[in-house]
Amino acid sequence: MNFCSDNVSGVLPDLLSALIDAADGSAMPYGADAWSERLDRRLSEVFETPVEVFPVGTGTAANALALWQLTPPFGAVFCHEESHVAVDECGAPEMFTGGAKVVGVAGEHGKLDPTGLEAAIGRTGYRMVHRVRPAAVSVTQATEFGTVYTPAEIADLAAVCRRHGLPLHMDGARFANALAAQGCTPAEMTWRAGVDVLSLGATKGGAIAAEAVVFLRPGLSNDFAERRKRAGHLASKMRFASAQLLAWVNNDLWIRAAGHANAMARALADGMAGIPEVRVMAPVESNMVFAALPPDLRDGLRANGVLFYDWPSETPGLARFVTHVQTTATEVTALLETARRLAAVTPRPSNPL
Amino acid sequence: MNFCSDNVSGVLPDLLSALIDAADGSAMPYGADAWSERLDRRLSEVFETPVEVFPVGTGTAANALALWQLTPPFGAVFCHEESHVAVDECGAPEMFTGGAKVVGVAGEHGKLDPTGLEAAIGRTGYRMVHRVRPAAVSVTQATEFGTVYTPAEIADLAAVCRRHGLPLHMDGARFANALAAQGCTPAEMTWRAGVDVLSLGATKGGAIAAEAVVFLRPGLSNDFAERRKRAGHLASKMRFASAQLLAWVNNDLWIRAAGHANAMARALADGMAGIPEVRVMAPVESNMVFAALPPDLRDGLRANGVLFYDWPSETPGLARFVTHVQTTATEVTALLETARRLAAVTPRPSNPL
Amino acid sequence: MNFCSDNVSGVLPDLLSALIDAADGSAMPYGADAWSERLDRRLSEVFETPVEVFPVGTGTAANALALWQLTPPFGAVFCHEESHVAVDECGAPEMFTGGAKVVGVAGEHGKLDPTGLEAAIGRTGYRMVHRVRPAAVSVTQATEFGTVYTPAEIADLAAVCRRHGLPLHMDGARFANALAAQGCTPAEMTWRAGVDVLSLGATKGGAIAAEAVVFLRPGLSNDFAERRKRAGHLASKMRFASAQLLAWVNNDLWIRAAGHANAMARALADGMAGIPEVRVMAPVESNMVFAALPPDLRDGLRANGVLFYDWPSETPGLARFVTHVQTTATEVTALLETARRLAAVTPRPSNPL
Amino acid sequence: MNFCSDNVSGVLPDLLSALIDAADGSAMPYGADAWSERLDRRLSEVFETPVEVFPVGTGTAANALALWQLTPPFGAVFCHEESHVAVDECGAPEMFTGGAKVVGVAGEHGKLDPTGLEAAIGRTGYRMVHRVRPAAVSVTQATEFGTVYTPAEIADLAAVCRRHGLPLHMDGARFANALAAQGCTPAEMTWRAGVDVLSLGATKGGAIAAEAVVFLRPGLSNDFAERRKRAGHLASKMRFASAQLLAWVNNDLWIRAAGHANAMARALADGMAGIPEVRVMAPVESNMVFAALPPDLRDGLRANGVLFYDWPSETPGLARFVTHVQTTATEVTALLETARRLAAVTPRPSNPL
Repeated sequence: MNFCSDNVSGVLPDLLSALIDAADGSAMPYGADAWSERLDRRLSEVFETPVEVFPVGTGTAANALALWQLTPPFGAVFCHEESHVAVDECGAPEMFTGGAKVVGVAGEHGKLDPTGLEAAIGRTGYRMVHRVRPAAVSVTQATEFGTVYTPAEIADLAAVCRRHGLPLHMDGARFANALAAQGCTPAEMTWRAGVDVLSLGATKGGAIAAEAVVFLRPGLSNDFAERRKRAGHLASKMRFASAQLLAWVNNDLWIRAAGHANAMARALADGMAGIPEVRVMAPVESNMVFAALPPDLRDGLRANGVLFYDWPSETPGLARFVTHVQTTATEVTALLETARRLAAVTPRPSNPL
Repeated sequence: MNFCSDNVSGVLPDLLSALIDAADGSAMPYGADAWSERLDRRLSEVFETPVEVFPVGTGTAANALALWQLTPPFGAVFCHEESHVAVDECGAPEMFTGGAKVVGVAGEHGKLDPTGLEAAIGRTGYRMVHRVRPAAVSVTQATEFGTVYTPAEIADLAAVCRRHGLPLHMDGARFANALAAQGCTPAEMTWRAGVDVLSLGATKGGAIAAEAVVFLRPGLSNDFAERRKRAGHLASKMRFASAQLLAWVNNDLWIRAAGHANAMARALADGMAGIPEVRVMAPVESNMVFAALPPDLRDGLRANGVLFYDWPSETPGLARFVTHVQTTATEVTALLETARRLAAVTPRPSNPL
Repeated sequence: MNFCSDNVSGVLPDLLSALIDAADGSAMPYGADAWSERLDRRLSEVFETPVEVFPVGTGTAANALALWQLTPPFGAVFCHEESHVAVDECGAPEMFTGGAKVVGVAGEHGKLDPTGLEAAIGRTGYRMVHRVRPAAVSVTQATEFGTVYTPAEIADLAAVCRRHGLPLHMDGARFANALAAQGCTPAEMTWRAGVDVLSLGATKGGAIAAEAVVFLRPGLSNDFAERRKRAGHLASKMRFASAQLLAWVNNDLWIRAAGHANAMARALADGMAGIPEVRVMAPVESNMVFAALPPDLRDGLRANGVLFYDWPSETPGLARFVTHVQTTATEVTALLETARRLAAVTPRPSNPL
Repeated sequence: MNFCSDNVSGVLPDLLSALIDAADGSAMPYGADAWSERLDRRLSEVFETPVEVFPVGTGTAANALALWQLTPPFGAVFCHEESHVAVDECGAPEMFTGGAKVVGVAGEHGKLDPTGLEAAIGRTGYRMVHRVRPAAVSVTQATEFGTVYTPAEIADLAAVCRRHGLPLHMDGARFANALAAQGCTPAEMTWRAGVDVLSLGATKGGAIAAEAVVFLRPGLSNDFAERRKRAGHLASKMRFASAQLLAWVNNDLWIRAAGHANAMARALADGMAGIPEVRVMAPVESNMVFAALPPDLRDGLRANGVLFYDWPSETPGLARFVTHVQTTATEVTALLETARRLAAVTPRPSNPL
């Protein structure tokens, strides 16, 4: 039972079928194939506006290339201090931009708020030559803590961006989970709320390796093709990424699959809430549960084959459990039963942590 | 009938099966899966020496990351002036290295020769602070012109490298074609001849997107994991690239498939040699045929559904025909028959080009 | 009366004489002149250890090149969140390093403390491939707030560095002011306390443009000459920077001149302490006075020809007054008298700010 | 007697006086001083068009920053294959541009010609994503071989640039020598002939360290201030560079001083032409003489205190003699007399080289 991340998941059957279909016969390389050519049109329908789509192989690539597109070397990108862009990409945004500054901003449960963002922009940029220039803002949806911005919250951040003339990027490695959680449309979650560029991630949602940079506003993608190529992210057999993305958004598969993952996390959190030794630490709004557990319980779970990560934090015993598109209710039940059983036999300390 | 490139090919059935097998169930990400863990061991057997293998998504990534590993920002990389590294990667090696110089060296039919290499190194580097410092040499095997270095030729270039203390990189986007052409072992073609790092490409050989940087000598891969991550080339679901690579080298599939592609090119070239209007321009040693054709013949082939690229050259009418692992004898025959038929009805000029 | 910065100062007479002496006749370029050749030897005496000295034109260059030397592209440099390296160099360290992360750390009055540094290192680096790797620590001496580390405080920070295997860089744009303030030797302030590399600045101390990267430990300067050249910071007529640096350290001129600047700041702060409308906000330990003044008083001073900068801060009315090697007691007295006179005629608010 | 380079020269008396005048008293930093503010206006008069001037410390900085301004990371800069930009800046243009390609183009005596330039642009750029994009052209005036472009020749190259939409940069490290040689105005040599940006070098012409990037066309300098700062080339005490530049162009001092250097080279070449053992190898059009000398003669000159560089070349015995603004007729005569005397006593071989 692997709750380490959603990138431990296998491949959704519809995506595998799409791959198999695409595997037969020759096709022109570098996106000049039928699948890739359909992709812009299909996602334009899905997003209800003309979009430009550039598939790439990883989420790090999608984010770093998108931010390279938006910021000059002497620019600053504002994002949450615990966001993937800030801390989990080994400095990829800094490298591709030629050394732009990624400015981490504090905010509760992994979310930026307009006041904090406004203050950070104010502190950083004086429009003087000695300081880097505010250049872009990036939000993660759903966040690294499993919380989800409402479209209204996105719009509030976008208003700050607009005031400072900054484009707004969304790291959507778990975009489908956010959509499923909010029950809103892709358009409402993005360009209608003021998002300019989206890193759209299907890998965590059941693909092999299918991410894309989606430009939601005309005139922003200039030279992006060169950047992608130069970064080594122009796949020659692009049809396979495109075919997966097409199958993923077909018939709302992406939303349904992400909704399932969210429901599994909800069930897990609800079950954990009933175990006194366990304390759920952040709102469970998508497919992640952050919970503090005593050491014996964590060890016991692992001894029973439950995989999950301890999470670096000031909260002792914090662990992260991620559900995904193929997590089963059986697995969740098994985890909870094991936890309950272990908790029952453990002498319960007065202070559980 | 698509002769544009070998990256137009579909997926070999054994690789597709391997993908399907790997798609089921969860696995740890970032290479901590069973397939990726087997890969080093398996390729160490194949190469008859302990190797370290880092899968990446594209050939550009494999080359640029390998050269980043070998050269400081103030270094120079020597390669053929028409090599992929020099002209077809939109400056990726320059970007990742932080601005190293890629020095193009002339050489017949896409191959470096020791004299030219020695001279280029001599011209570039005076070990003074004003000039960049010779740092690495890169050869392409098979070359962009379809020619193949013998192990002895590689060894001669490696001797020049050793004299100057430079590591030798091999761009093996078509490594299997070269192996099949030479009938030698992977070891003979690489480390026994003095190659230190190999970009091993399976994509052109029938995979979806499976390339790898293979370190053939201990102590060279230090920090490479960080570079790959930072470049956005650490795939979370690495099992799928690894599974393809494992299937590809299994039972010599890679050699057999590449040998088939080579044979198709041989047949194509032999057939073309019999058409007076067509002149084959470079030795056909792997899976590419460069031939000069009169404009009418090129137009006619295309009108009959034969796809191929015109090739920028001082030779007028130069075209490139690439065969691949799924090119059929029927396709080659059809191409040749069409060409013969078209040539017969075209009034033949005294000077065919 | 210019209290904006110490870089508004003219040139110390001894340095001007040295320049004039050096201006006559020809000399070999790029440091192969008599002055530059004497510099390593002379500074080795001054620092009581064999040092390597690389003159450059600006403090930004000295810092950015020194940090480039110490950190890989995927590294992190820890420094105070308000330090010049972090906020006043338009991202130069990020650019030269190829996109390393400059991690700002909080600390009172511009100083890092061991606990905060230790925590920041702990938060940043998990030795995993997803996160940048802690690579270096940089302290500013004297700090941007005019405070000064004692050698013991430096040693405490160096102990943290050693624990993590990180080299310690000192931004010494005002190194002479710190020396004068502490009354210790250059050796005690640097390598004896654990500093590995020093950006030594003479420009703010009375030179035209003379800074140097000083390596205080053998084996650290490898390839630094190439970096300096490549950055455009290898002056062809290096003799003029070297001649200034030699004259500057001659007969303790640097310490005496900086001591004078410090004394002027002390006198200014003491005088200001007697004006009720003015509140001195930070310890005055070198040549800077940070004070909060009501708007009328700031306007009045400027109307009377006193130049100074308002300082971005949460403290309303914060201003920075910097004294330098040519600030006169007359200027300080005049400033204070003007301030007293203006304060006397201004109706004093209950809350002065 | 130092004929190694013109950067061995001392400082012209008028420039030293200007420095001394500027050294007294305080002035605002970073170009907000009276001298720097006058510089744009003064050079706009000199160039007969509104120019923007950015002083920097070295010629490498001027060139690399100018080219960074003109080319994207995925761009190509075309220049002569032996130009400073291509081979003598340790890859600075590559670094600052983020890895653009510097494409060396052959051409007689260090000069680009329109045919060669056109061909190189054609070979490099196909406007496809796989290849870097032609972005700028750079010419050196006077060239590294001492030859000088006429304004008409510049205009012919500019026509090629215009056809491809490329800006034209001029490396004017020896711009004054070229002006003196051609007897034309700065305007005729630059923007009237189609030059967009000039690296204007005064250091080789008798300054301490005074170079400037001069934008000759509106709308090109956007963000350049940030680039200069970020590169560490924004001098805090900019007044000293500006004061030198002002004095240098005052009363045509720059042209007169450069004219003197040129005349000394002319005299040297004329004298050498009369010595049978010596063969002058390139047209002497500015302040450099390239001549082939037998080994004994080179050794003998050095033994008699004549300093000069051997020049890497396929011509055996090639040496470079550079005259400068303070080279005296006495020195030239002494060199020639020594050479004649040495040649007379050396048994003359049938083939002198």
